Amino acid sequence: MKKLINNPEFVVEEMLEGIVMAHPDYVRKLENVDVLVRKNSPISGKVALVSGGGSGHEPAHGGYVGMGMLDAAVCGAVFTSPTPDQIYEAVKAVHGELGVLLVVKNYTGDIMNFEMASEMAEMDGIKIARVVVNDDVAVENSLFTAGRRGIAGTVFVHKIAGAKAETGASLEEVKAVAEKVIANVRSMGMAITPCIVPAAGKPNFSLAQDEVEIGMGIHGEPGTHRETLSPVDEIVEHMLLKILADMPLEPGEQVAVMINGLAATPLMELYIVNRKVHKILEEKGVKVYKTFVGEFMTSLEMAGFSVTLLKLDDELKVLLDAPADTPALKVL
Amino acid sequence: MKKLINNPEFVVEEMLEGIVMAHPDYVRKLENVDVLVRKNSPISGKVALVSGGGSGHEPAHGGYVGMGMLDAAVCGAVFTSPTPDQIYEAVKAVHGELGVLLVVKNYTGDIMNFEMASEMAEMDGIKIARVVVNDDVAVENSLFTAGRRGIAGTVFVHKIAGAKAETGASLEEVKAVAEKVIANVRSMGMAITPCIVPAAGKPNFSLAQDEVEIGMGIHGEPGTHRETLSPVDEIVEHMLLKILADMPLEPGEQVAVMINGLAATPLMELYIVNRKVHKILEEKGVKVYKTFVGEFMTSLEMAGFSVTLLKLDDELKVLLDAPADTPALKVL
Repeated sequence: MKKLINNPEFVVEEMLEGIVMAHPDYVRKLENVDVLVRKNSPISGKVALVSGGGSGHEPAHGGYVGMGMLDAAVCGAVFTSPTPDQIYEAVKAVHGELGVLLVVKNYTGDIMNFEMASEMAEMDGIKIARVVVNDDVAVENSLFTAGRRGIAGTVFVHKIAGAKAETGASLEEVKAVAEKVIANVRSMGMAITPCIVPAAGKPNFSLAQDEVEIGMGIHGEPGTHRETLSPVDEIVEHMLLKILADMPLEPGEQVAVMINGLAATPLMELYIVNRKVHKILEEKGVKVYKTFVGEFMTSLEMAGFSVTLLKLDDELKVLLDAPADTPALKVL
Repeated sequence: MKKLINNPEFVVEEMLEGIVMAHPDYVRKLENVDVLVRKNSPISGKVALVSGGGSGHEPAHGGYVGMGMLDAAVCGAVFTSPTPDQIYEAVKAVHGELGVLLVVKNYTGDIMNFEMASEMAEMDGIKIARVVVNDDVAVENSLFTAGRRGIAGTVFVHKIAGAKAETGASLEEVKAVAEKVIANVRSMGMAITPCIVPAAGKPNFSLAQDEVEIGMGIHGEPGTHRETLSPVDEIVEHMLLKILADMPLEPGEQVAVMINGLAATPLMELYIVNRKVHKILEEKGVKVYKTFVGEFMTSLEMAGFSVTLLKLDDELKVLLDAPADTPALKVL
């Protein structure tokens, strides 16, 4: 196992220390529990946004804690759902009088544990609501999922629901706009190399030297199929057509595009992917309102990428453009 | 060769198209030459900053074109110096009455070609100055370098000289602050896997399954030695001591820290590296003023990282904190 770590047992703990040391103006860690919260939490007069999941997808979700996005990120063990207690502690630390919205990626463990945490918080009288992100069009049901998986589109939920919360909107309003994002966001991924969960110490799958997996999940869950590596434009076309089959777009409609590197893919290649995505959308008369290229929802050291499209209306555009100031995403 | 590209011959061209499509509010490409300039260039009333080098180090340098940093990035072929003509076209496109500062990383080809371009521009009566960044303490002289290599510390030169230029300072003043950064910035890198130059089609070096190269350059140039992979804290300690031997820091002095991923290193691991860097500096009584963790100066898909320390005074702190708005780096 060739990893730049100390002890597999302490990777999350040491990472969280490193995050707080790097970004002390943004985040602090709760005592005795792996939760990052906004430095000045709880913030009154706004709905608090809490997300999280297994670690290994950085900058998700700790990198999105800050003004205009999340109030807390609950950090599970690598690729492992956080516990209900952990989530409950996060909720208690950030909730104000307007309540808390939990943004959950659709994995069975996350669903169960965020639900249990909600029940615990409700027993304390905390107002709480939940949304489940399931943007991955690749496969119905999967290794850890009933229904579709939640992947990089989750970052758009953080951004837009986070902006809405900053306006002082009610929990119902913030939840409604998060659900609007979820209804209009679709993603699909692919991978060319596996990743190594530190505690496992070996790659989580293997691909031949000329083989790619289309529709790969962010934990190495199987996608739709494996095929021989072809020029990336062909791969992008296949992925985009699958997204567009699920969410048809008419000429004149506007989208935000996210080209997300899973970790090891050079930025050079992500921009080549972006070029093809823009070309296909242009051919269809779809207007790209805003583009994000980088690493937003990773899979340890996996090489590959995902493409996310978010269909926009005027409300979503305003909230997408609203200021945000977090370690991983800043909108001026 | 497992790369997400179309044709190795067109990677830079297609990447530049993808960058402009992603960031049309920030950059445009000059016609018939691989140069990215600020969308509204030339900007009057300020010194123009031009940098560049071989491609494959993204987001350097195109990602740093924008308010508060560069006016132009000259993009050579992968790991290949841009031509004098290319650099000259960049200078002509962005220069104003206050002149142009060229920020050059110390590689023999870059030095030669930026110098030739300077001479061409001077013959046109353009006021021009050059600084050479040589922050890598690992080795004196190298595969493509006389003296020390220029690596991730270059990004601090872009940030600080760029901020100075925005104040309307003279070419002499902007050059002086760039040289102050260069005098106070030190870096060192390491790698655990090689990268593949698209035109070569095979890895540019090989390391055994348990082997790392300490002091590796950003093109795969040899470092100081190879060794068996040890816990990353030990590697960090070795690298930091080498930096501090070259640039001693007294208790109470302040630094900016950059933990730079070469591409394939998970953000989780970069934060674990950051933790150790902060711990060592804290033990020495050195105060970390600001920390940057991410991918700033990459090497295609290489796995590894570099650590950069910039010793700060009041002037450098103000300029480091000044607003910047570029695709890859935003300071609010």
